[in-house]
Amino acid sequence: MKIIADENMPNVTKLFSAFGEVELVNGRTLTKEQVKDADVLLVRSVTKVSSELLKGSRVRFVGSATIGVDHIDTEYLAEQGIAFSSAPGCNADAVADYVFSGLGFLALTKNLRWLNKKIGVIGYGNVGKTVFDRFAALGCDVCVYDPIKQAEYASQNKDSVPFVSLASIMACDVISLHAPLTKEGDYPTIGMIGKGQLQQVKAGTAIISAGRGGVIDESALRELYKERRGDLHLVWDVWQGEPELDLETLSIVDIATPHIAGYSKQGREKGTWMVYQAFCQYFNIDKQVSLRDAISPGRLRALSLQEELEEEELLARTAHAIYDVARDDSRLRFNYRRYADKATFDWLRKHYVERDEFATCAVESSSQQALIKLKAMGF
Amino acid sequence: MKIIADENMPNVTKLFSAFGEVELVNGRTLTKEQVKDADVLLVRSVTKVSSELLKGSRVRFVGSATIGVDHIDTEYLAEQGIAFSSAPGCNADAVADYVFSGLGFLALTKNLRWLNKKIGVIGYGNVGKTVFDRFAALGCDVCVYDPIKQAEYASQNKDSVPFVSLASIMACDVISLHAPLTKEGDYPTIGMIGKGQLQQVKAGTAIISAGRGGVIDESALRELYKERRGDLHLVWDVWQGEPELDLETLSIVDIATPHIAGYSKQGREKGTWMVYQAFCQYFNIDKQVSLRDAISPGRLRALSLQEELEEEELLARTAHAIYDVARDDSRLRFNYRRYADKATFDWLRKHYVERDEFATCAVESSSQQALIKLKAMGF
Ligand SMILES: NC(=O)c1ccc[n+]([C@@H]2O[C@H](COP(=O)([O-])OP(=O)(O)OC[C@H]3O[C@@H](n4cnc5c(N)ncnc54)[C@H](O)[C@@H]3O)[C@@H](O)[C@H]2O)c1
Ligand SMILES: NC(=O)c1ccc[n+]([C@@H]2O[C@H](COP(=O)([O-])OP(=O)(O)OC[C@H]3O[C@@H](n4cnc5c(N)ncnc54)[C@H](O)[C@@H]3O)[C@@H](O)[C@H]2O)c1
Repeated sequence: MKIIADENMPNVTKLFSAFGEVELVNGRTLTKEQVKDADVLLVRSVTKVSSELLKGSRVRFVGSATIGVDHIDTEYLAEQGIAFSSAPGCNADAVADYVFSGLGFLALTKNLRWLNKKIGVIGYGNVGKTVFDRFAALGCDVCVYDPIKQAEYASQNKDSVPFVSLASIMACDVISLHAPLTKEGDYPTIGMIGKGQLQQVKAGTAIISAGRGGVIDESALRELYKERRGDLHLVWDVWQGEPELDLETLSIVDIATPHIAGYSKQGREKGTWMVYQAFCQYFNIDKQVSLRDAISPGRLRALSLQEELEEEELLARTAHAIYDVARDDSRLRFNYRRYADKATFDWLRKHYVERDEFATCAVESSSQQALIKLKAMGF
Repeated sequence: MKIIADENMPNVTKLFSAFGEVELVNGRTLTKEQVKDADVLLVRSVTKVSSELLKGSRVRFVGSATIGVDHIDTEYLAEQGIAFSSAPGCNADAVADYVFSGLGFLALTKNLRWLNKKIGVIGYGNVGKTVFDRFAALGCDVCVYDPIKQAEYASQNKDSVPFVSLASIMACDVISLHAPLTKEGDYPTIGMIGKGQLQQVKAGTAIISAGRGGVIDESALRELYKERRGDLHLVWDVWQGEPELDLETLSIVDIATPHIAGYSKQGREKGTWMVYQAFCQYFNIDKQVSLRDAISPGRLRALSLQEELEEEELLARTAHAIYDVARDDSRLRFNYRRYADKATFDWLRKHYVERDEFATCAVESSSQQALIKLKAMGF
């Protein structure tokens, strides 16, 4: 079996070479000719997979180590009977890490005390659920807005999730946004949080935007910020109009990052592994490598903490030992001051400094209470 | 014995209450009346100590938990036979941490490989020596410019320090500045690094400015930066014209921080302890608390590292687990975009997020080589 794979998919040789010849290619410049005699094609988001690339090839399985599928013509694949699999949820933990790193930043620099406040999560998909679960494990008072999932759960008689209205979420002290950008359907998200919704936000609220740009109407947000004289805490990873970014929005957000909440080393590895799993299922092969073995250890393997830390500080300091959102904010602000053009956003993403997930690091403390909280946060 | 002490001097009650009544006061608003019947006065840099404050009091000992003495009329104290002691060097380790955190940032974000390059240190006082010693322990090729110390050492026949000319320093790959701002004497430092000196700087050089603003001529630096098309790496803690800060300089430096290189929790504690030590000596009392017991443990007590890390990455990731300069840069850039006025600089310093020193954190690794390097860097 011939397997063509993007050279930037981590671990791909390790995982797939037992089943055939693995040829590594540059996904950006991949041609029809290269693909012609391949059985399996493994790509990332930089490769457009459509009839143009695959016509005349003998490819039977396409895997994409990404959560999005915008670069894949899934209809064409289905028509042709080509199996397809992507990696939904592979970066959910990375985004959850981002959320708690951002809250840690606000706790340390603005004294935000969020643990005992009301938390609202928007979107209860792979990411939203992961974020929700961590808040819940931390003992927070957390609720969710996701009318689609709510209906689904209701029809299945599952009722353990505290679904609420969008208005209830807007009244929370922390709002964490993880909805996709949709323009159609019963609940389009584009501009879903506009002037009316923002008016319900209390002073001192923290908003974390790590789903998709355009769900929040940024011009309404800027107005609110002016009215409130800045009494809002904003952690911004996704932007309306990305990869262009509004410089006034940049000037009001506490943390500004270039759509990298999901970028972790282990998230990328999980992406490859999920495709590997689907591949094994499709070809009916036994998996030879477990998820555990396919994931890199963290650069920091363990850390040991002082007992006396106050809870928000404990969580913040520990989170930041592994990943401090401020490091990405710092680079973005520097680059936007110097070279604020269209290419900057993507350049920053492309030259991202690799980070590990909280889960790769063991924690030690003689305080059982501290360990429980840290585990809840993802360690 | 009555001891009046600034309420913001850490540990002051713990250290001094064995010797008399310790009264804590607000150092900014301290009056003659409050000081009148005190024997000992302990201050920070916010209290002006002169005849105006002390006239008619019975103060016999003044201690300042600072490295600078600009706020103290030392002549008056000497005249009156009042003993005085400050805390030179208390923050040398904090500044050295800053330097290596900054290099770590450049290593991770700009791929700077500095370990095997030529390093030049300017100023061989408490800070410069500490920084030099760490580079030397790391095995770096490091030299020093300090004509005053050089003459002193020569007269004492000490010749172990590789003193060189300023021109040789300017040709190094990393230049770390730790000279004070002086306008008189044989070697005034004001504008010491001007156009001529900067012309000798090679492309790709990293300059770390953590001594005093004004030693480098920033307008010459900005010109050089333009000529080099940005091929310089700049880590900036002290600024010409502080607390005002040139926005164009801000736009060219990779890391911009508000004169906080020396701000660590343990540095402040060392300051109090050094005054305590001088106090014990002056009053001929046995010290009851050792330096070790007067210093707080770190929030992270220990961390354990992966073996396979490449050296610069190992040093950077470990440094940043304790202190990442980018966190301070991020806050400065955010605040300067929003409220770029004269007060911002001092506000940022006043509301600094406390950090620990590298030395408070133990490191574990099965690589002996890694441990040696980390110890050399200050862990
Ligand atoms: N910032 C990043 O780096 C990053 C990383 C990962 C994912 N994302 C984005 O975050 C979003 C969520 O990712 P995911 O993996 O959880 O996707 P998902 O498809 O698993 O979940 C999306 C959820 O949003 C819900 N939703 C749809 N319309 C909604 C509405 N109007 N209001 C509330 N909820 C609504 C859906 O019902 C679904 O449960 C996606 O758009 C994804 O692209 C961003
Ligand atoms: N950024 C910060 O937060 C921070 C923290 C600590 C110290 N500092 C500053 O850093 C400087 C050094 O601090 P220190 O504690 O080492 O002081 P120090 O007095 O111990 O040492 C200063 C050294 O600079 C040398 N020097 C004087 N003129 C020189 C010249 N023309 N060229 C080269 N060297 C010269 C002196 O001989 C001396 O050895 C001071 O100005 C101090 O205020 C800044």
